[in-house]
Amino acid sequence: MELQNDLLLRAAKGEKTERTPVWLMRQAGRILPEYRAVRESVSGFIELAQTPELAAEVTIQPVDLLGVDAAIIFSDILVIPEAMGLPYEMIEKKGPWFPETVRTEADLKKLRVADGANDLSYVIKAIEITKKNLNGRVPLIGFAGAPWTIFAYMVEGSGSKTFSRAREILYTQPAFAHQLMQMITDSTINYLKAQIKAGADLVQVFDSWAGILGPKQYLEFSHRYISQICDAINEVPVTVFAKGAFFAREEMGKLNCETIGLDWNMGIEESYKLIGANKTLQGNLDPAALYGNPEEVRSATLEMMEQFKGKRHIANLGHGVYPDIKPEKVKVFIETVKGF
Amino acid sequence: MELQNDLLLRAAKGEKTERTPVWLMRQAGRILPEYRAVRESVSGFIELAQTPELAAEVTIQPVDLLGVDAAIIFSDILVIPEAMGLPYEMIEKKGPWFPETVRTEADLKKLRVADGANDLSYVIKAIEITKKNLNGRVPLIGFAGAPWTIFAYMVEGSGSKTFSRAREILYTQPAFAHQLMQMITDSTINYLKAQIKAGADLVQVFDSWAGILGPKQYLEFSHRYISQICDAINEVPVTVFAKGAFFAREEMGKLNCETIGLDWNMGIEESYKLIGANKTLQGNLDPAALYGNPEEVRSATLEMMEQFKGKRHIANLGHGVYPDIKPEKVKVFIETVKGF
Repeated sequence: MELQNDLLLRAAKGEKTERTPVWLMRQAGRILPEYRAVRESVSGFIELAQTPELAAEVTIQPVDLLGVDAAIIFSDILVIPEAMGLPYEMIEKKGPWFPETVRTEADLKKLRVADGANDLSYVIKAIEITKKNLNGRVPLIGFAGAPWTIFAYMVEGSGSKTFSRAREILYTQPAFAHQLMQMITDSTINYLKAQIKAGADLVQVFDSWAGILGPKQYLEFSHRYISQICDAINEVPVTVFAKGAFFAREEMGKLNCETIGLDWNMGIEESYKLIGANKTLQGNLDPAALYGNPEEVRSATLEMMEQFKGKRHIANLGHGVYPDIKPEKVKVFIETVKGF
Repeated sequence: MELQNDLLLRAAKGEKTERTPVWLMRQAGRILPEYRAVRESVSGFIELAQTPELAAEVTIQPVDLLGVDAAIIFSDILVIPEAMGLPYEMIEKKGPWFPETVRTEADLKKLRVADGANDLSYVIKAIEITKKNLNGRVPLIGFAGAPWTIFAYMVEGSGSKTFSRAREILYTQPAFAHQLMQMITDSTINYLKAQIKAGADLVQVFDSWAGILGPKQYLEFSHRYISQICDAINEVPVTVFAKGAFFAREEMGKLNCETIGLDWNMGIEESYKLIGANKTLQGNLDPAALYGNPEEVRSATLEMMEQFKGKRHIANLGHGVYPDIKPEKVKVFIETVKGF
């Protein structure tokens, strides 16, 4: 189906666009009262993500309610461990928790490489429904976690300030770490290809915990697997968002992908210099800037847009929108980008 | 009293030293069984920090047991809010928690600028005892949190992944934020001067949450107050450690201080280029590298030392030592630096 608004895809490929496309990480979520109403109709986050009709509904909400230039499928990066044989729970106000972790060869033997279409059929189904209901209005973004970030949760068993169990294993059992990373990478490639087959128009890889690795370990244990993913996905444009990996921007410029996401710490001009002219950059307003009043949000957004002016750009925040941000402020951000 | 080992102070000032001095952030703490024994004799962390004899004892332990080239007074950055009138509790396995927070003008009126010598007499007393008992063996480092980091806890009321309440206020109430920052800064200057008067030979300012501010906000709300502190302290060398503030290294090079701490994400060669030749750099081994076996710790330490070779350097980790690291590994790190 022809897209009525393909700004995101053209901007990703570096083609000329009438204006800069805009969407927000975590746009389908707690910022919208309409999302919270759906969320309350089920037992929890995981049930919502696993119910294709509802996942599709909340995916489309920000397109209708906020006017973003793309939808991103409502799901979670931790569906991959689950599909590999390591289930998790989402604890209210605490975050994800894995009853079992992966720290030994024996743990590894219990896991399998996930087949995206079968093991994650509920996401695939949600994408199909979303595509049908979007009816070509805007592109649909698929996504997955980067292998290092997924590895960190699988080894640690939960979120962590330091992820020291996961980082310990990089030092003490590098061969084991590479084995697990490769299984995650293969699962992720299968998963992203299944998403694309079901209709995802672009895919984004989220390396949420990139910034806790030193530069050398990042290249060895994260970047090389992201690079495998980029090389394997040629069907649609790929975006890589490695939060905190400021030190790897030159290397990110060499990835076989179209777009690099910037967090709000990364200077825009410097990032273009380091990453190079053959990539689109996505971002990067401080999510906390949306706490300001409408005039302040407008002015912060314009200031950001000025710095991206004339360059390949997809507008977004520098991280996911905070759940207590008012939808009106998000609209000011979106409208300011659109009017620029 | 003449110091028998003044390597740290000479290295900080850029004078020639026979070898690189070495110490570890959080060296007085849970890594040592001898610390845990003292800790178990009191009701909690705060009681330990507020009992000068015991604080002095655990301060000196790593000098005796690990052979570091400096002691750092056992205390906590959050004694400043307490001294300003905002008490806190330390919740086991959770971290600091403030029953009251500071978010309005009315909250601000309840606070005072701390007088270091009186309001924090227990720290001052601990420094005096430590100096006496160290008997000139190694220098004693005093410290304080940077105003932004202290502000973040006072507004947020606890640790946080995003410190979104604190960052919200920077956007919505900048004048209020500056008022509180100035009160914290004045308190911190008083406090550091009292520490120096009591015997601290060098002071370090810890900006633990520097890395969650964007570059522009960091300069306005953090760096300018650190700069005030550096300008006010001329009695002893000053070290500034702003974790995650990779984007502000050029500006840090202009601070009126002797040493800049690097976290393990910051490339060494690049940091010297950005910060400039008139500063000593401190750091920056990945704390997780000490999970490796002794040979691996040795090799990781040598690799770091090679990169600092011939430059102004104080060896340390890139963040506090993790509490579950074995003291033997810490010793390998220290001995490797000493033998380099």
